[in-house]
This record gives sequence, C-alpha cells and structure tokens, in this order.
Amino acid sequence: MRTPERGFPDAEYEARAARAQAMMAERGLAALLVCTEPEVRYFTGFHTPFWQSPTRPWFVVLPADGRPIAVIPNIGASAMGTTWVDDIRTWPAPRPADDGLCLLVETIEEVVAGQVDGSGDEVRIGLPMGHETHVRMPLSDLDALRARVTPAFFVDATDIVRRLRMVKSDREIGKVSHICDVVSGAFEGIGGLLSVGMTEREAFQAFKIDLLERGADDVPYLVGATGPGFDDIIKQPSDRLIEAGDLLMFDTGSTYDGYSSDFDRYVAFGHAADDARRAYEVVWNATEAGLAAVRPGATTSDLWQAMSNVLEAGGSLGNSVGRLGHGLGMQVTEWPSHTVDDGTVIEEGMVLTLEPGLTWAAGRMMVHEENLVVRAGGPELLSRRAPPELPII
Amino acid sequence: MRTPERGFPDAEYEARAARAQAMMAERGLAALLVCTEPEVRYFTGFHTPFWQSPTRPWFVVLPADGRPIAVIPNIGASAMGTTWVDDIRTWPAPRPADDGLCLLVETIEEVVAGQVDGSGDEVRIGLPMGHETHVRMPLSDLDALRARVTPAFFVDATDIVRRLRMVKSDREIGKVSHICDVVSGAFEGIGGLLSVGMTEREAFQAFKIDLLERGADDVPYLVGATGPGFDDIIKQPSDRLIEAGDLLMFDTGSTYDGYSSDFDRYVAFGHAADDARRAYEVVWNATEAGLAAVRPGATTSDLWQAMSNVLEAGGSLGNSVGRLGHGLGMQVTEWPSHTVDDGTVIEEGMVLTLEPGLTWAAGRMMVHEENLVVRAGGPELLSRRAPPELPII
Repeated sequence: MRTPERGFPDAEYEARAARAQAMMAERGLAALLVCTEPEVRYFTGFHTPFWQSPTRPWFVVLPADGRPIAVIPNIGASAMGTTWVDDIRTWPAPRPADDGLCLLVETIEEVVAGQVDGSGDEVRIGLPMGHETHVRMPLSDLDALRARVTPAFFVDATDIVRRLRMVKSDREIGKVSHICDVVSGAFEGIGGLLSVGMTEREAFQAFKIDLLERGADDVPYLVGATGPGFDDIIKQPSDRLIEAGDLLMFDTGSTYDGYSSDFDRYVAFGHAADDARRAYEVVWNATEAGLAAVRPGATTSDLWQAMSNVLEAGGSLGNSVGRLGHGLGMQVTEWPSHTVDDGTVIEEGMVLTLEPGLTWAAGRMMVHEENLVVRAGGPELLSRRAPPELPII
Repeated sequence: MRTPERGFPDAEYEARAARAQAMMAERGLAALLVCTEPEVRYFTGFHTPFWQSPTRPWFVVLPADGRPIAVIPNIGASAMGTTWVDDIRTWPAPRPADDGLCLLVETIEEVVAGQVDGSGDEVRIGLPMGHETHVRMPLSDLDALRARVTPAFFVDATDIVRRLRMVKSDREIGKVSHICDVVSGAFEGIGGLLSVGMTEREAFQAFKIDLLERGADDVPYLVGATGPGFDDIIKQPSDRLIEAGDLLMFDTGSTYDGYSSDFDRYVAFGHAADDARRAYEVVWNATEAGLAAVRPGATTSDLWQAMSNVLEAGGSLGNSVGRLGHGLGMQVTEWPSHTVDDGTVIEEGMVLTLEPGLTWAAGRMMVHEENLVVRAGGPELLSRRAPPELPII
C-alpha cells in the first residue's frame, strides 16, 4: 500500500471553510469560533502536540466569507505561518491578566461589524456547545467573553462542526485507511511478538514499538488487559504475568498524519475456554450483522439494532460501553454514536467503527471493533477483518 | 537507578484530599468539582488514555469531609473500582439528552445538603475557572448545571488545585526523576542513533523507539526541528534530510506512571556555525543563573530576572515562548510560569523547568531546558545537565 501524501492542499481547507460558511449562512451566523485541537486543525491545518500544555488558549474565528483568522499565542506564530491561514494575530502568552481575551474580542467585533445591517437584529456567533464538545479556555475568561461581545451573542454551532467532520474527504479517508492497514499488520503479527511469561507492561511496550516500526506516527491510545476474562476495557498495563489460557485484548488508536485508527483484537495464549470462544463468535457475528446494515440512508440506530439483535440472541449480559460503535477520524472517537436512539443518517464518506460488545459472565466482557468507510454500495473495511474464530497464539 | 513503584498508597490520596479540604474550609466551600484528566487523576488515581475520546464527561466531587465521589460513565466503573474511591455513581454514557447532568446535580445537592446551616447563606461550590484550567463538558450542560444547583453556586477554585499540585510529594518527585533519568540517557546516546542523511521523520521515530526501549511508558510529547536555524519549536517532523552543519533540537515530554519530563537538547551534525555555538553558550549560562536563583522563598519572577539578564547581555533578539520555564508533573507544563510578573513564591517540593530562550538571528531561536526539584538548600537537578558547549555528533 502506498503511503499517503502528508498534509492537505489549500483546496481542501478552502472546501472545508466554504461548507462551513454555507451552513453558517443558513443559520444566520456572522462568525464561527473554535478553540479545541481538532477544530483548529480542521480549519487551519495547524498540527502540533503542544496542545498537551494546558497553559495557553488558542482561537480560530471563521468569518462569513474568506479564510479563518488565527488568534493565538506568540509561540504558535511560526507553525501557523506554514498553513493556508494568512491573518495570524498573536499575544505574548501566558499573560493571565489578559490571555488573548482583548485580542479575541477585537477580532470578533471586527469580523461581525460587516454583518450588522442596521436593522437592530442581534448578531449571532457560532460556538460548539453541544455533545462531544467543550470550550478550551478558562471559564472566567469565557464568561467575560460572553459578557463583552454584546450585542453579538453566542449560539450553539455543534451541528456545523459535527456535519462537516462526520463526512470525510478522500484524502482524509486515505490517511485513516493507511493507519488501519499498519495496525492490521501489527495485530496479525502479534503471535510472533508476545508470549506466555511476559508481563502486561512488556507486552504493551513491544506492541507499541512494533506499531512505530511498521509506520505509525504515534500510538497515543493503547489500552488492554490479560487474564481468563476482564471487564475493564480502558485499562493501562500492570506487572501481571501472561499465563497459558489467558485472553489478551489490545485496543489502539494509532495515528498517521493526525488521523486515527480505532480497533481492537482478542487472542488467547495456548488454549481458550469454550465460553470465551463462543463469546468471540457472537461479537464476530454481530459485526457481520452491522456490516450488512451499513449503507447510505440507514441510521446509526439501524446499525445498533442489527448488532444488538445478535448480541441478545447470543446471551449477552450487557455492555458498559454505552454504544456499539462511533465515528472516527482526527480523533479516536468522533460523532456519531451507534445507540438505540441516536438516529444519525449514514452518508457516503463517513468513517465509522462497529464495536459490538457483550458480557458473557460476571466480570468478563468481550468487545470487537472494525473500522470502515461508507461507500455508495455499502461498507468498505479499513481494518482487515478479524478472523471468525478466537485466534490461539 | 531503581525504578520507582507504580501508583500511590491510599495514604497519598488521603493527604491530597485533606489538604484540599483544609483549603476548602478556609474559603467556605461546601464541595469541590473537578472534571479534567489531571484533577480527576490527582484526587482518585484513575489513570487511562481514554480521555482522548471527547464523547463522555467525567466528574469528581470532593465533599468538605471524606473521600471524593466519582460521577462517571459506566465504561469507567471497573477502572475506578480499583482506586481508593468507594462512592462511584455511573450513567450509561453517551446519552446526549442527559449525559450525567442529573446525576451530577443530585450528587452535588446531596453533598452540600449537610452544609446548609439554615442561616440563609448561599452555598459555595469550588470549580477551577482560572488560568491553565478549562471545564471539560459541553457548554450547554455547564450552563444548565450552573442554573440548576441554586441556591448553591460555583466560585473559582483554581488556587486550591494550583497550590495542591504545585508542591509534589516524594513519590511524585521520584516518578518525575525517573523519567528525566530515562530521557537524559536517550539524549546522551543521540550521537549513536542519528546521522546525516536521515529524514527528520526517521530521526523522530528512532528517538521515540529508543525512549520506549529505555523505559519510558510513553512519548506523548515530542517536537523538534533541524536546519541551520529555526524558530518553530513546537514542530512536527518533515521529510527534510539532515545535512552536515545542521542543528537538531528535540524537546520531549516522556512519561513514567503518569508523570512527565519536559526538557530539550540541541546538537549539531559534523560542525556548527560560530553564532549557533555562542547562542548555545548564552542559554547554557542563563540556565546557570536560573539555577543559582532557585531557593525556597525566591519567586518565579526572580528566576525570570536572573535568566533574562544573561539573555539580554548575550544579545537576545527576543523569544516567542512567553516565559522562561514553568511547573512540571502530571502534565508536561503546569503552574507556575517564570515571567516578569508571575511572582509565585517558590517552595520546597516544587518541580520546575528552567527554559531560557533567545533569538540570535532572524528566524533562529535557541531554547534550553532543565528539570529540577526545589529542596531546602536550593535546586536538585532531575535532568542531567546539558554539556556547556554545543555537542557535535
């Protein structure tokens, strides 16, 4: 598989801004404000792990027309200068007394000034406020911002970023596809990498290094467990020694060029109990049912129902995950969620996980996951399909 | 160096809660609400990379007395059950119509009920709202929460978590010390790992794998650059080929048991220009001046001044970082900041970076960083001191 080109041409960012601005026009929004890593990266291409530092807020204001405006700490000016953004406004952060607030208020006022039509109507500024979002700035500054931009006021714009980001471009799909391919290879090679007698911690590190050697840029998300069964599926490794008859689960969100995989695999060491094998087959078959239900026009709740039917029939005692899959892309999980009542209509270009899970005995849960892109004719798998029977290594 | 034990005994969490509750009592707070990864981990020990998924909010309520209460999605119940927390309340997340909000309001009302003394006084609940904090939940839910907990109301509690987290316990210091030791070894071995003709991307991956092999749990933060000079110091790698005469900068926040290093190193390939060597010496000497100023009772602004004097005298053309060092611990950067007016009084047990930087020519910046813990007699280095002259590899 050819490694996809890094980054995106300006045309990709132009298309993102244009789609956003069309939705903003429909909703009468004079500007859109975003301040979290994926949204800032989506509109600008600004890509750095520096977001792990909680010290400085970062803002992007998308006007009704034209390119986004970056309102960012000095330290980011050089990196932002390499993107398609040409209006970069900086302040010497950290400066707690005014950490970008005045500059942001000025920028918003300037952007919305052109939108005031003298009719006395209030000016609406979009800000994601809904499910799966948060505002990454100190609450005291956010409250001050909301008090100071009057007569403009903020309205929820979750639907805009959600709709934009849920449907991926071919370039985005290519990046997810590539990292899924890398991770599939690593999972298929796991029998040669891990063995009885290693600790969980050694197994995690060996797998992480293997993923990097196979071409993952990073392995920001790796959870897993070992034992005869387990119900903590977001676990960090312990010093537990892997024993014959153990199950092992690894679930990884590895990345390529800022796009993530998100799927897991179970294996057994030496031999496996019959109930674990049966549980594996149920979740594998539930995934088949989910795949059969994926098509443009179906809903996430249709997928949930198709998978849920198989899990119920297979004797599931429940599932703590709260959903049977979700969107995937710049983040390890994204909108939408496959739940009983989510009801999001599936569209061509969405990248989704199917993630059926069940509890087969007290404290023993099994969750399977595959990644796919929705095409006109149905799903195209991005992860290579798990084997239909629990692999013994 | 002996690898420090994983985790913390319950006594550590008891001490954290007691310190917080003493400050809450001083400020008349009936409860403290936290909802971000480091704060939740600080009070509970809950440790998972699952926070990368933006889907679900997580809450911890610390009452005026007793252990913290976890109000969390179902999926975290098993992991939270392994911590010292014994009151774990869950809901089946994701559930956008009520993603924990009712459960959180009920919990807060129950906790503060015992604090209402019939005097008609309002009940104050602490929530970090200030510098370096944000509230990790949808803004629409946060607004609803603030409307629904009346007559109780939220007040800023940044100072409580800031004071708590700035001074580290011996066990915390041991974890930072260990990862600094691992990273020091990797930096000292860089000459055997990297060479002219590699791409930046290959150099990054080789260094990341080397860190993992040396015992880092993870390398969540790695930025760097190569070339005759550069001013983007939060950069991701490119396909640029390393040439003879290039400078290379790596800056990493690697982790051990959830605690981070944060320091960088510069090297030159084959030979180095005189102005780069001079810039290196200036920042090295600025670090010496910073080290000489570190003692309990001095302030972060004293450190800033000591380093700034050397940078100015050395011909600095400025610095986009905005500060000359900061706190370090569970996050790659933490309070306080060494700035001209930060003024935080330095205490024994604080873990700090010194990070003087200068621009020596247009577009050419050099930043050096060391990590230390403040002891009664002055600084104890946690990173092994960089060599006084620019290393040539």
